[in-house]
Amino acid sequence: MKIEGKEGRALWFENNEIHFIDQRKLPYKIEMFTAKTVDECAFAIKDMVVRGAPAIGAAAVYGMVLGKKKLDKTAEILRKTRPTAYDLFYAIDYMIDKINNGEDAQEAADEYVEDIIDRCRRIGENGEPLIKDGMKILTHCNAGALATVDYGTALAPFYIAHRKGKKFFVFADETRPRCQGLLTDWELEQEGIPHAVIADNAAGHFIKNGEIDMVITGADRIVRNGDFANKIGTYEKAVLAKENGIPFYVAAPISTFDKSIKNGNEIVIEERGREELAIVNNCKIMPDYTKVKNPAFDVTPSKYVKGYITEEKILKRKEVELI
Amino acid sequence: MKIEGKEGRALWFENNEIHFIDQRKLPYKIEMFTAKTVDECAFAIKDMVVRGAPAIGAAAVYGMVLGKKKLDKTAEILRKTRPTAYDLFYAIDYMIDKINNGEDAQEAADEYVEDIIDRCRRIGENGEPLIKDGMKILTHCNAGALATVDYGTALAPFYIAHRKGKKFFVFADETRPRCQGLLTDWELEQEGIPHAVIADNAAGHFIKNGEIDMVITGADRIVRNGDFANKIGTYEKAVLAKENGIPFYVAAPISTFDKSIKNGNEIVIEERGREELAIVNNCKIMPDYTKVKNPAFDVTPSKYVKGYITEEKILKRKEVELI
Repeated sequence: MKIEGKEGRALWFENNEIHFIDQRKLPYKIEMFTAKTVDECAFAIKDMVVRGAPAIGAAAVYGMVLGKKKLDKTAEILRKTRPTAYDLFYAIDYMIDKINNGEDAQEAADEYVEDIIDRCRRIGENGEPLIKDGMKILTHCNAGALATVDYGTALAPFYIAHRKGKKFFVFADETRPRCQGLLTDWELEQEGIPHAVIADNAAGHFIKNGEIDMVITGADRIVRNGDFANKIGTYEKAVLAKENGIPFYVAAPISTFDKSIKNGNEIVIEERGREELAIVNNCKIMPDYTKVKNPAFDVTPSKYVKGYITEEKILKRKEVELI
Repeated sequence: MKIEGKEGRALWFENNEIHFIDQRKLPYKIEMFTAKTVDECAFAIKDMVVRGAPAIGAAAVYGMVLGKKKLDKTAEILRKTRPTAYDLFYAIDYMIDKINNGEDAQEAADEYVEDIIDRCRRIGENGEPLIKDGMKILTHCNAGALATVDYGTALAPFYIAHRKGKKFFVFADETRPRCQGLLTDWELEQEGIPHAVIADNAAGHFIKNGEIDMVITGADRIVRNGDFANKIGTYEKAVLAKENGIPFYVAAPISTFDKSIKNGNEIVIEERGREELAIVNNCKIMPDYTKVKNPAFDVTPSKYVKGYITEEKILKRKEVELI
C-alpha cells in the first residue's frame, strides 16, 4: 500500500518499536502510533488503533516480541484486548510455540506477518485477471491493506491490476453504519486508483444502468456450503448483481473457510449498539428517542457467488465444499 | 398527524398567518416558523422550512392569500422560490384563476389544501386493508404527513391502520444520503406507531430472514408503463422484495402519474452535489478529497410492483397503463 506517496504498511516493527497507522484518525488524518511496550501494544489493539483480524494478529506477534522476556504475562495481557478475535489467539499461541522451541522471536514474528502479506498478494494475483481494461467494479466495506497489513483481500486484485497498468474505476459503497467505505476511499486515493464513494442506496441504480461490471467483496467467514458472512449490506449487493447478470466475487484467504459450520443459516449474527448508527465522526446524527436495529453482518447464500478468490486459486462453489 | 400529542399538520393558516413546522430543524427540534408576508412565505419555501411537492403547493396557495391584493407580484415572487416544483406552479395558477373569478381567496386555498389531505386520507384507507395484525413493514425515505400537509402517501395506510387499532411494526430505512428516514422516525414516534430505523444496508438481511412482510414506498413520478422514480435506494428494496417473495407497493395520488413518459428509461435522473453525502446534521463526515457520485433518484421497473395505492383504488400494473 501507499502512504503519502511512499510504499508502506498498516503496521511494522522497527528499532524494537511497533509503528501503526492510527486507524482511529483515518480517513481524516494520517497519524502514527508507536508502541514501545506490551501495554502500549495492548492499548493499540484494544482501542482500535489497528483493526481487521489479520492486522490484529500481526500486532500481537510483535507485541510478543516486545514482551518475550515475560512470555506468560505478555500473552495474558494481549489475550484480554479483543476477546472475540480468532487471529489474536492464534498469533499469541504461534509465538509461544516458536519461542519455547528456541526460535528467534523477531524472526518468527516477521515470518508470520510476511505470510499474511504473501497470501494477500497471491489473492491479488489470482483475482487480477478478472479485471479488464475499462471495467467498473463495486466493492463494499473495507477489505483492504489497512485490515491485513498490506494488499487486503477484496482490494488486492485492484492493487495488482493497477500496478500492471490496467485502467479501471472502483465504486466504493459508503458502508453505513460505520462508513468503512471511507477507508477504502482513503486507500484507493493513496494508491491513485480512480474511484468514487456512493451511498449504499445507489449501488443498485448503477448496476441496473450497466455502469458496474463486477462486484468484489471480502468475507468474515465462509462456511462449508459456500454461504458467507460479511459486513451488513453485502447480501443486498449480491442479489442486485445476480438480478442484473453481473458477476459477484468474494476474496478471502483459506483461513476464512470455517469447516465447522454446514450452512449460512447456522451463522449467528451480532447485533450492535445504536451509537454505531447514531454517531458519525463524533457527531450525533440521530435524536435520542430514535430506536435502531443494527445487525453488524449479513449472510449471503452461495448461489449468488460466481467465485471465491483465494491465495490458491479462484474456487467455484462446488470446490468450496471439497476443501 | 400528531405533534407532541396533539392533532396537527405540517402547515396551516390562522389569523392571516401561515404556520409551518420548521422542517429545517427536524428531527432534532420541534420549532414553528410563521409567515406573515409573501416574502416570508417565499423564504419558507426556498429555504426548505417546508418540503415535499404537495406541502409546497399548500404553502403557495396560502402565500397567494397573503398577497391577494398584488396578485401578479405575489405570483412572481412565489414562482421564483423552487423553479422545478410542479405543484408550486399548479397551485399559483389555481389561485389566480379562483381569485380572478371572484372567489374568496382563503376559501379557495382551504379547498385546495383539504383536497390534498383528502386524497392522502383515501390513499390511507385504500392501503389499510393490506396491513394485517402482527405484520412488519418496510418503508424508504419519508412519504409522510410532513411532505403532504397530513397523512402522507406511503405512511397514510400506517396512520389509518394504527387508528383502527391494528398492531404492526415499521422498519424505516435511514435513507442516505439525506437521512429522510429520520423524518419518518419522527412522524411514527409522534403517532406512537412501533418502529425502528435501520441502515439502508440492513433491509435485505431482514427481508431474507422473514422479518419483513411487505414494503410500501412513495413515488416522485409514475410513468405510463408503471415504472416509477423515487428516492435513491427504492429500486434496491424492490429487487430484494421480489427475490424473497414479499409484496412491494407504491403509494401515490393520481396526480403523480405522468402520461407524457412512456417508460422508466426516459426519466432523467438528477445528480446532486457531494455535500449531501459529505455533511450530515451540519457535521462533515467525509474528507475534502473524497469524490462522490450522488444520483438523487432511481427508477424501479413496474415488474417489481405488486400494486399502486391511489386515492381511487389499488391499481394493478395493467390498470396503470389504462389511466
